[in-house]
Amino acid sequence: MLNNKYSSSLLEKAVTEINRLPGIGSKTALRLALHLLRQEPERVESLAESLVAMRRGVRYCQVCHNICDDERCEICSNPTRDTHLVCVVENVQDVMAIENTMQYRGLYHVLGGVISPMDGIGPSDLQIESLVERVRQGGVDEVILALSPTMEGDTTNFFIYRKLEGTDVKVTVIARGIAQNDELQYTDEVTLGRALAGRIPFGR
Amino acid sequence: MLNNKYSSSLLEKAVTEINRLPGIGSKTALRLALHLLRQEPERVESLAESLVAMRRGVRYCQVCHNICDDERCEICSNPTRDTHLVCVVENVQDVMAIENTMQYRGLYHVLGGVISPMDGIGPSDLQIESLVERVRQGGVDEVILALSPTMEGDTTNFFIYRKLEGTDVKVTVIARGIAQNDELQYTDEVTLGRALAGRIPFGR
Repeated sequence: MLNNKYSSSLLEKAVTEINRLPGIGSKTALRLALHLLRQEPERVESLAESLVAMRRGVRYCQVCHNICDDERCEICSNPTRDTHLVCVVENVQDVMAIENTMQYRGLYHVLGGVISPMDGIGPSDLQIESLVERVRQGGVDEVILALSPTMEGDTTNFFIYRKLEGTDVKVTVIARGIAQNDELQYTDEVTLGRALAGRIPFGR
Repeated sequence: MLNNKYSSSLLEKAVTEINRLPGIGSKTALRLALHLLRQEPERVESLAESLVAMRRGVRYCQVCHNICDDERCEICSNPTRDTHLVCVVENVQDVMAIENTMQYRGLYHVLGGVISPMDGIGPSDLQIESLVERVRQGGVDEVILALSPTMEGDTTNFFIYRKLEGTDVKVTVIARGIAQNDELQYTDEVTLGRALAGRIPFGR
């Protein structure tokens, strides 16, 4: 039997590093490493450099904390966006998801997570103070809470709502109801109950 | 809508590069990139360096063409291995699979693929000539064909068998039959037929 399962310490090191990535098991890591071995060295260097450049170079927008290359992100520095609207989201992927709807023209505020005592994440670990400060400085008419409808999301929504009491900003939350193409009979009771309670005039 | 979906060109570049890996879609690529963004810069550099070092440093054994760090792989340079036995396999993963059985003490010969006209892979693209040369140089008593039992594997087996005619080496092929824990009723006819034809005395 091989002492070193991978027969090459360089291969083993690469597989070990790739294996550290979330959701990448040791078989997939080996498959990826052997794939890279078959590529031109320049291709592998291009991949490696892009990772280091990203980690070293990426910045966070000073206004909304979205990922960006400069002091302010493209959205905050876009003069055609509606600065009176601020949509509060958990993370960068949520910004992308909302942008992909092409339905929103306001700004964002990326919390960097939700309040989760189980994971040791409290309000001070999130960008909540900076949101309150942003609202206090004026110019924001409405804060739209767009967190996932989980217990942690609801807790965070409520915490932010309380923090914004005393300011004259309007606080809204994105609609909860039955998702497009979902089957009514398989919808959970909480969702169905809320969808009934939150019914709106037909034809709107 | 964002002009640049990823709001950071550095993030976009990294996601594009990761997305080029086989089996990694754009969503997984984004997830991995954002994971790396949360790691220490040194961790990301360690990953990047391991990939470049592997691609630049890995060599192929001059005897058996297995992946290694030196001129000869650990197996070929191990004095306790049986040099009279050479097991022919398709690739590096197959060497690992056979090593993991801990049942084999001989050497290997890694072809680097199998003959596949559909994929434009002919005998000259594989390490077949070097196998014949190795046998001709003497010292090898038995060549064990351990390719996958596919049409390409069978074709390659037969090609090697013909190439080795005229030498006095014994050519064997690994046993085909019903896999451990397989259900007889669900076994395909070819396998079941071969298992019957290839029956061996009980108790061996």
